[in-house]
Amino acid sequence: MSMKNQGVVVQKIQRVDPQVIKGLAECGVATVHEAQGRIGLLASYMRPIYSGASIAASAITISAPPGDNWMIHVAVEQVETGDILVLAPFSPSDAGYFGDLLATSVRARGGVGLVIDAGVRDIRTLTEMQFPVWSKAVCAQGTVKETLGSVNIPIVCAGELVNPGDVIVADDDGVCVVRREDAAEVLKKAQARVANEESKRLRLAAGELGLDIYDMRGKLAAKGLKYV
Amino acid sequence: MSMKNQGVVVQKIQRVDPQVIKGLAECGVATVHEAQGRIGLLASYMRPIYSGASIAASAITISAPPGDNWMIHVAVEQVETGDILVLAPFSPSDAGYFGDLLATSVRARGGVGLVIDAGVRDIRTLTEMQFPVWSKAVCAQGTVKETLGSVNIPIVCAGELVNPGDVIVADDDGVCVVRREDAAEVLKKAQARVANEESKRLRLAAGELGLDIYDMRGKLAAKGLKYV
Amino acid sequence: MSMKNQGVVVQKIQRVDPQVIKGLAECGVATVHEAQGRIGLLASYMRPIYSGASIAASAITISAPPGDNWMIHVAVEQVETGDILVLAPFSPSDAGYFGDLLATSVRARGGVGLVIDAGVRDIRTLTEMQFPVWSKAVCAQGTVKETLGSVNIPIVCAGELVNPGDVIVADDDGVCVVRREDAAEVLKKAQARVANEESKRLRLAAGELGLDIYDMRGKLAAKGLKYV
Amino acid sequence: MSMKNQGVVVQKIQRVDPQVIKGLAECGVATVHEAQGRIGLLASYMRPIYSGASIAASAITISAPPGDNWMIHVAVEQVETGDILVLAPFSPSDAGYFGDLLATSVRARGGVGLVIDAGVRDIRTLTEMQFPVWSKAVCAQGTVKETLGSVNIPIVCAGELVNPGDVIVADDDGVCVVRREDAAEVLKKAQARVANEESKRLRLAAGELGLDIYDMRGKLAAKGLKYV
Amino acid sequence: MSMKNQGVVVQKIQRVDPQVIKGLAECGVATVHEAQGRIGLLASYMRPIYSGASIAASAITISAPPGDNWMIHVAVEQVETGDILVLAPFSPSDAGYFGDLLATSVRARGGVGLVIDAGVRDIRTLTEMQFPVWSKAVCAQGTVKETLGSVNIPIVCAGELVNPGDVIVADDDGVCVVRREDAAEVLKKAQARVANEESKRLRLAAGELGLDIYDMRGKLAAKGLKYV
Amino acid sequence: MSMKNQGVVVQKIQRVDPQVIKGLAECGVATVHEAQGRIGLLASYMRPIYSGASIAASAITISAPPGDNWMIHVAVEQVETGDILVLAPFSPSDAGYFGDLLATSVRARGGVGLVIDAGVRDIRTLTEMQFPVWSKAVCAQGTVKETLGSVNIPIVCAGELVNPGDVIVADDDGVCVVRREDAAEVLKKAQARVANEESKRLRLAAGELGLDIYDMRGKLAAKGLKYV
Repeated sequence: MSMKNQGVVVQKIQRVDPQVIKGLAECGVATVHEAQGRIGLLASYMRPIYSGASIAASAITISAPPGDNWMIHVAVEQVETGDILVLAPFSPSDAGYFGDLLATSVRARGGVGLVIDAGVRDIRTLTEMQFPVWSKAVCAQGTVKETLGSVNIPIVCAGELVNPGDVIVADDDGVCVVRREDAAEVLKKAQARVANEESKRLRLAAGELGLDIYDMRGKLAAKGLKYV
Repeated sequence: MSMKNQGVVVQKIQRVDPQVIKGLAECGVATVHEAQGRIGLLASYMRPIYSGASIAASAITISAPPGDNWMIHVAVEQVETGDILVLAPFSPSDAGYFGDLLATSVRARGGVGLVIDAGVRDIRTLTEMQFPVWSKAVCAQGTVKETLGSVNIPIVCAGELVNPGDVIVADDDGVCVVRREDAAEVLKKAQARVANEESKRLRLAAGELGLDIYDMRGKLAAKGLKYV
Repeated sequence: MSMKNQGVVVQKIQRVDPQVIKGLAECGVATVHEAQGRIGLLASYMRPIYSGASIAASAITISAPPGDNWMIHVAVEQVETGDILVLAPFSPSDAGYFGDLLATSVRARGGVGLVIDAGVRDIRTLTEMQFPVWSKAVCAQGTVKETLGSVNIPIVCAGELVNPGDVIVADDDGVCVVRREDAAEVLKKAQARVANEESKRLRLAAGELGLDIYDMRGKLAAKGLKYV
Repeated sequence: MSMKNQGVVVQKIQRVDPQVIKGLAECGVATVHEAQGRIGLLASYMRPIYSGASIAASAITISAPPGDNWMIHVAVEQVETGDILVLAPFSPSDAGYFGDLLATSVRARGGVGLVIDAGVRDIRTLTEMQFPVWSKAVCAQGTVKETLGSVNIPIVCAGELVNPGDVIVADDDGVCVVRREDAAEVLKKAQARVANEESKRLRLAAGELGLDIYDMRGKLAAKGLKYV
Repeated sequence: MSMKNQGVVVQKIQRVDPQVIKGLAECGVATVHEAQGRIGLLASYMRPIYSGASIAASAITISAPPGDNWMIHVAVEQVETGDILVLAPFSPSDAGYFGDLLATSVRARGGVGLVIDAGVRDIRTLTEMQFPVWSKAVCAQGTVKETLGSVNIPIVCAGELVNPGDVIVADDDGVCVVRREDAAEVLKKAQARVANEESKRLRLAAGELGLDIYDMRGKLAAKGLKYV
Repeated sequence: MSMKNQGVVVQKIQRVDPQVIKGLAECGVATVHEAQGRIGLLASYMRPIYSGASIAASAITISAPPGDNWMIHVAVEQVETGDILVLAPFSPSDAGYFGDLLATSVRARGGVGLVIDAGVRDIRTLTEMQFPVWSKAVCAQGTVKETLGSVNIPIVCAGELVNPGDVIVADDDGVCVVRREDAAEVLKKAQARVANEESKRLRLAAGELGLDIYDMRGKLAAKGLKYV
């Protein structure tokens, strides 16, 4: 984001303990987002290319020119097992930066997916491969390989800051970023929420009302709610 | 909509005969919309969270502050078998007002779905539950419980007026509202359309042209259509 | 597009050799788009109503008034085996011009799909029929039959010029148009790309990097890329 | 909105006392919207065609087909001094329903402006005439005169219900509707706000802080705000 | 649009008689659009960067890569007195292709403006220069000079086909294209409309109703309009 | 952006030398954006509420809940001469966070404007005051004062990271952020560009072509450009 980090590849980044990442994946986006105080959610236009994928992974960040996917090739070399590519263009682009060949390459390195504030293509093959992508657009428009960007610098992707090594949690609800340094604490809070929700679910399924379970009637009356 | 009905819960509403509602569900949105003179269709940005759901139900309306889902808890208590929640925020919001816990609660009361001119989350679980939702957005963003709205007052949802007890018809084509007082008549017209369409379908499938079935050639020629 | 061709139906159009069309379908949108120099892609808001369809077909073009589907009936008579309807409204419209009855009629004539820069309805039945549609919107809003348009004149659909008889290639990545006179040459280039991609895929799957396969390291260094 | 009121012109409507309307105009949209409890604001995409107009007027409502301005001619006959036309299309349209000839006609009847959830044209002449319009779009696209709508029935315009005779307040901030029966009370509250704001403005201009004027420091501290 | 015309500059184009162009400018967009049968209007998102400009000019067309303004420099050499640049990117881009230096250059060659389905910058200086631009976006984002496009080939700009030498009419209502071969005839029809409108304006200003001037009452009654 | 900085007000921030800020204002957005390597531009939907304002100022950042403007009051206390407020909501909101009273207060503290990725109101008075605002929306919708945010922490506003004390440059072309530590160097480069542009402007105005001034003909020919 500063003038100093264009054309730079940071090779050594720190990642979160895989067990913590695995735990965050199990909690899912909505719970993790709540657990960390309702922050970190990428814009809701970021949608999965197919339903049902649910992952957490360490971010390899890519800052790329509009309509230019050269840096993805550079980034793939930095991918380790359990990583996910996170790409933000310098300026808005819907072009199709990524397709099945790059997915094949990412997977061969142990990578598990892509989050891209731009377009993706080869949807059918990516779906058959079950290689999950969350993107702003599906678009076959080709890209060039002309201009440098950077890999593993802080980026803003779909309205949220993502640092290399931050944890990306993504499922059908969208994409959430968890700071590397907060991940263990967020996981604890998220797991507590899951446990708490389970008992709530049973009571609600039995017909109890949220009004009673959460003891809302008094506060509603105090605010002036009138039943007629 | 008037100054008088904020912070109000109307407990007793009138509903349409369940047999009429069932009939409307069988006709589907496009047919019902045509049958009632091409009115009542909610904005086309209202999309189902999964494909294949097709319902009709009595509207429990909710007027809620932006990013505040408190009134849903209030509304759930008003739900009876065969009802659907219909929520419009005071001002635009994409926040995720509704998830699987609330769906569990609605279903426990006999409710059959949600129409919301805002966001919804827990898409995967809602899909597994086969709890249908038509929404403007999928968004994990959490909401607060701070400010009153109203339940079972007339609302404007996705551009259409919905009164409590109106029939909501919703399927993969979108969402249509039928006035409570018109429902029986609309059903008759819709069923007539269905019957009529079936015979048309057979003739079209056999290769007859709409130009001939609907006797359009003369009118087209009169308007000046030229074949070259 | 000129004042001369409103209210006109061109009955005799030239089509591309069916074997060429079949070949283009097998290559898919992304490959064909690349093969012809990254041109011809319709706007990315054109989305399929269901996943997995992948076709190529000869365009029967329709220029229609906003919210008026009369010309589709006229166009169906011009459909031959292997054709696809391509509709552009005079001015923007999301109305539902097309549903399952028209699909039945198109199929009875040998037509294989629809590309429409407007709305479509009866999504569920169209999906059951496996009749593919790429559209700007899903919308149940009905249309009228009042005003003439034209059939088989050049149109601009979703930002691209489409001539009658041009080849439409469409799949989950979107829609691409190939000029009738370029089709054979584009197919050759597309098939060469497919062959070339297959060997790349194997090397990438084996863990080789694009950086090495495409020999990018020197050029990146020359541009000033720094590893830190 | 019901099946009964298509093709209907209601000739006799009730209007608010002109002095009340004048008072609301002087308060402006933001103040009136606050005074009536933050309701009644039309969608923020409704923008004035030129800056500086600020009016209040009685609504003559028009429900019109998409791309068809026939009903405006019908509505003009219903205009009395101090009225404003408010048009909502049955389904979305950006077409240019209204231009300088219609404005000339409306003005000749004593009408003062237009609110339209669609397009308007002849912007330059309308600006020279200082005939104010709030619209969703500026668009030269012509409309037809083929299909009936209604005049002076309740409509939903840009997301808000507008009844004939309701007061429309509009300025550079947008458009707000005040129910006819609430207008006098809303005016009183709005005038109280204006008076109150004036003293606040003086204190703020003198450098006092809102934190102190509104006594916020304690509540902020109680919520946990930390100064570092 | 075909594979053959990328990287091509057509140096010799035919233009319309300057007197015809001058006449079209005086009629304005809305009238010209009506006069040629309601065709040729570019998308309504094309807005002038300042109010009050009203021109007609011969199109110098530019097909350019996204985010690459190299071809504008090539096009400027082709500009003659009374020409306007019309640029369409290969794929969507909001980048700022054009600023005050290029405007200085265009004006020095006799050019009178720019229509661009992308972004423009240096708004303040362009306004001071009174150099009119109609664009999709205002955006300071810089562009590169890397890839060829073409000059003076047919392009699709904002949804409409524009051929080199076609007449562009543009004012506060938007942008309309008139085919070179239709221009003289369209002018005649447009001037007839202007004459006709003037008498209508006087009668409307005097309080006569469109209902009577256009003799609509019978047709409305025949369609079933009811006054209540 | 981390869990640690919600509900925090950072009171002491570092600012750039006022002479540097003044210099950046004189260069303007497009030049500054180019000078720092085409980075730092906020999304192009950020538009000024009136034309002609052109400023540079030190950012006081505000991270605020959707539809809640409480933190603006907190931020005003932190404003010093030459500062500008920069507000980003936690999640998208078009509500009208800011009006003429707050502008009065900001100005009384020496503040010079507002950049807000949300809505603003009282446009007419703000324009009369010549208090410049760049916003995503104009919207009268009121906000609440219920939930804490933070002041002077790093925020993401309209897609760009803004740190407290960074320089905001804003004019009719949009908004650009310059890192505090880069400001002096960016100014130097920007001033060099201005000087260089002036001589170019004179040559272009005299009719010289960019093709010759920038020596492009050879490179274009090498890429294969053909004149026909």
